[in-house]
Amino acid sequence: MEQQNPTPRVIPRRLKGFRDILAGDVTLRDQMISRIREVYERYGFVPLETPLLEYVDVLGKFLPEADQPDGGIFAFRDEDQEWVGLRYDLTAPLSRFVAMNPQLPLPFRRYQVGPVFRVDKPGPGRYREFFQFDVDSVGTASMLADAEICMVMCDTMESLGIAPGDFLVRVNNRKVLNGVIERVEAMAALAPRADVHILRTVDKLDRVGLEGVQQLLGPGRKDESGDFTKGVGLSANQIDVVMGYLSIQVNSRSRVCEELHRLIGGTKIGDEGISELKQIDEGLTSAGYDNDRVSFDPTVVRGLAYYTGPVFETVLTFKAVDDEGVLRQFGSVSGGGRYDGLVERFTGTKIPATGASIGVDRLLAALKSLDKVNIAPTTAPVLITRLDPRFLSEYHRMATELRSAGVHTEVYVGTQGIGKQFKYASDSGKTVAIIFGEDEAKAGTVAIKDLRLGQELSENIGGDRRKWLEEQPAQIMVPRAQLRETVRGVLARYLIG
Amino acid sequence: MEQQNPTPRVIPRRLKGFRDILAGDVTLRDQMISRIREVYERYGFVPLETPLLEYVDVLGKFLPEADQPDGGIFAFRDEDQEWVGLRYDLTAPLSRFVAMNPQLPLPFRRYQVGPVFRVDKPGPGRYREFFQFDVDSVGTASMLADAEICMVMCDTMESLGIAPGDFLVRVNNRKVLNGVIERVEAMAALAPRADVHILRTVDKLDRVGLEGVQQLLGPGRKDESGDFTKGVGLSANQIDVVMGYLSIQVNSRSRVCEELHRLIGGTKIGDEGISELKQIDEGLTSAGYDNDRVSFDPTVVRGLAYYTGPVFETVLTFKAVDDEGVLRQFGSVSGGGRYDGLVERFTGTKIPATGASIGVDRLLAALKSLDKVNIAPTTAPVLITRLDPRFLSEYHRMATELRSAGVHTEVYVGTQGIGKQFKYASDSGKTVAIIFGEDEAKAGTVAIKDLRLGQELSENIGGDRRKWLEEQPAQIMVPRAQLRETVRGVLARYLIG
Repeated sequence: MEQQNPTPRVIPRRLKGFRDILAGDVTLRDQMISRIREVYERYGFVPLETPLLEYVDVLGKFLPEADQPDGGIFAFRDEDQEWVGLRYDLTAPLSRFVAMNPQLPLPFRRYQVGPVFRVDKPGPGRYREFFQFDVDSVGTASMLADAEICMVMCDTMESLGIAPGDFLVRVNNRKVLNGVIERVEAMAALAPRADVHILRTVDKLDRVGLEGVQQLLGPGRKDESGDFTKGVGLSANQIDVVMGYLSIQVNSRSRVCEELHRLIGGTKIGDEGISELKQIDEGLTSAGYDNDRVSFDPTVVRGLAYYTGPVFETVLTFKAVDDEGVLRQFGSVSGGGRYDGLVERFTGTKIPATGASIGVDRLLAALKSLDKVNIAPTTAPVLITRLDPRFLSEYHRMATELRSAGVHTEVYVGTQGIGKQFKYASDSGKTVAIIFGEDEAKAGTVAIKDLRLGQELSENIGGDRRKWLEEQPAQIMVPRAQLRETVRGVLARYLIG
Repeated sequence: MEQQNPTPRVIPRRLKGFRDILAGDVTLRDQMISRIREVYERYGFVPLETPLLEYVDVLGKFLPEADQPDGGIFAFRDEDQEWVGLRYDLTAPLSRFVAMNPQLPLPFRRYQVGPVFRVDKPGPGRYREFFQFDVDSVGTASMLADAEICMVMCDTMESLGIAPGDFLVRVNNRKVLNGVIERVEAMAALAPRADVHILRTVDKLDRVGLEGVQQLLGPGRKDESGDFTKGVGLSANQIDVVMGYLSIQVNSRSRVCEELHRLIGGTKIGDEGISELKQIDEGLTSAGYDNDRVSFDPTVVRGLAYYTGPVFETVLTFKAVDDEGVLRQFGSVSGGGRYDGLVERFTGTKIPATGASIGVDRLLAALKSLDKVNIAPTTAPVLITRLDPRFLSEYHRMATELRSAGVHTEVYVGTQGIGKQFKYASDSGKTVAIIFGEDEAKAGTVAIKDLRLGQELSENIGGDRRKWLEEQPAQIMVPRAQLRETVRGVLARYLIG
């Protein structure tokens, strides 16, 4: 309980890749989360919450960075010298939960929202702590569960005001990708781990383009800076198979299935993948989700290593101005897939599962740029100034009156005089200031100042607007009994309350 | 992207002191958080969110465990070998935020809710990750800000259905405690750090009682197990001063101030403390918060080292049955105080601040035992069974119909037959099951099964109840067009929807 010596001073700083989220954005994110939650619950998913910390072996090594020394996660030894880490997703903890609760009725259908942590290279819009909002069905091998996840993603986007055409759920199947590898391997033996490298190369399509993928499947590729990346070393014929696969046109889901059949039909794993896609198509079509909302796209890979079958992602297809003022496409805002082996890691018994995760922060950034969101007022719209200490009780009475009418009201609790109190009111975004002193007490009145109008007046706008402003004086004196209705009237000018 | 070898199996386990929170409790906690947020916003506080991880020197060493080797926090070295840790409260990060943003209009009034982490000894109801919901005014030395925090705590309790008399906000002032120490020191020199030990001893009053405190202030105390704890070593006269202080009767706030004046009046720091308490009393009284809601209590210390003036806590005064079935008093559900030196650690300039933190989990446990909460249905009330794959479209149509009427509806996505589907519906807490097959399709009907009634019928209750049940058959067949209204009727029996 002793106090610290204030010297030497501590430098106030945040960890790199982390951020503070201010009032407006916290409110927006919470509103978005409520909207998504509504959709998930409509489908009968129920909430679960797991700890932020898990044992590292429980989390497993499934991130693309898993082969790097730090494995992409924040990890450390606990008091018992066991390795623990901050969760990097909500799927690994869900699998741990299911494994620990064998009595759960299956399918166990849960949603979970919260922060996850990854030791990525931070960049604009890329943070090391970010919110995910997951929805999963654990304990069913039916492709209807996968189709349903895609439907939930569509409904979520639409509930957030994103119209079909502005988003697209893109579906593929790891088994189809493995079917391509099976075909390629049948032509000539592959080097060890070439399968992994082929998948990673395909996953780079967005960044390096078809030509870049072609080079990386062969001897290698020199990028714009002149750096050379060694390739997988496939033969020209082998590369042709992969490139043919990547060139399949994404039109109707059934046509994509036909093309896949033409290309990899007869491979054991590929046939399984195509059959699964057909079942997903059947589920989606029966529910009225057509190709304009959910398409099959052979180029989708998804980076996490635990996917075993269908994989999906939701992309926003419109262009908008991002945080840095650059016009760009937002790309993927959710990803997911089937992970039939994740619970088995613990139990030894296969408990098949599927689900998806929404990147809440990225989606929020997209919504903001779309102007699809109304920002709720983030500060109290009313400040009751403290002009005279003798009227403290009256200030509290006025606050109670306004608050019980649903008006967010702050009584000034600082130590400055009335002039500085007005400045504070403006700087902190208040709409109304209330003034009550000896004169008002004697007259039975109260002064109500419209701070936004005051600002407009002082900016001296001409024409009709000036006339309007004259009729709406920035400060009015009303009988004390009319406080509540007058304040509400002023707030209504700005659509608050 | 390679898959892991599933052998050897990983043991599914949680870190000790951590827990999974199930659907009902997640929903309850979220409802409680909304209610508290409403109160905070009514007073004009706005949200802020800071990272889970902070630099250890930024967090500072203010926990009671700060002098132990691990300091009571989860800490580790980051990639740059700097010490980082999981936040142990929301106050230290707030101070860091204010120090990094000198342009903020003051007072900066924010709320924040989220998990914090402490390496405490885990026990029943004691977790190492728990939710706090904080409210603070930063940048004002006015005692009105402290009084307001106490008012907010009262309003919060009442908004959660806890009546005055069932809760009490207890207020003290560290300066008054230091006044006692000043008086004791004037009688005979103290050993180094005796001031800290006196405070810690006083803070043990709840656990060891007045007699225990008396012994610990003197040579020491032997507890029931026979273990001896060395005491502070004060003289009998010195101990009398402290014991006199602790025996002050908690009646009216002004009477407590008088008693304090009698005991420590004339000590420099004690007089300051008494004057501050009087200002808080004035603020509270002017707003109509009397002694039945906010009392002055000289025994309140609070464990955190950063408090510099007023300290407060909210205690629940009723007794209730806890998680373990034991009748007990819940005690403190929120704590707080003034911390005028916390921002200064960074800036060198004093930025006075005050606030309080609600222990969300502890308060939730109390509310549950009070039966003050209505648990919202935590699973989807309706399961549409999948009897016949040919009717998949119809199942989806029914689901869409029900969902757009606001009914949480799950289409079965497992792979089991109809019998197991019914079992799943019961086990997972559904209220209604829908059955639609070839017969229903031909007849233009749908079968609706009331699963709760079915269970009651099978339990064969006699008397009038049986007659009632006969009139409410557990399974009814209705025209397909009446699906929605019939389901809503059944749900209404159980007050759902």
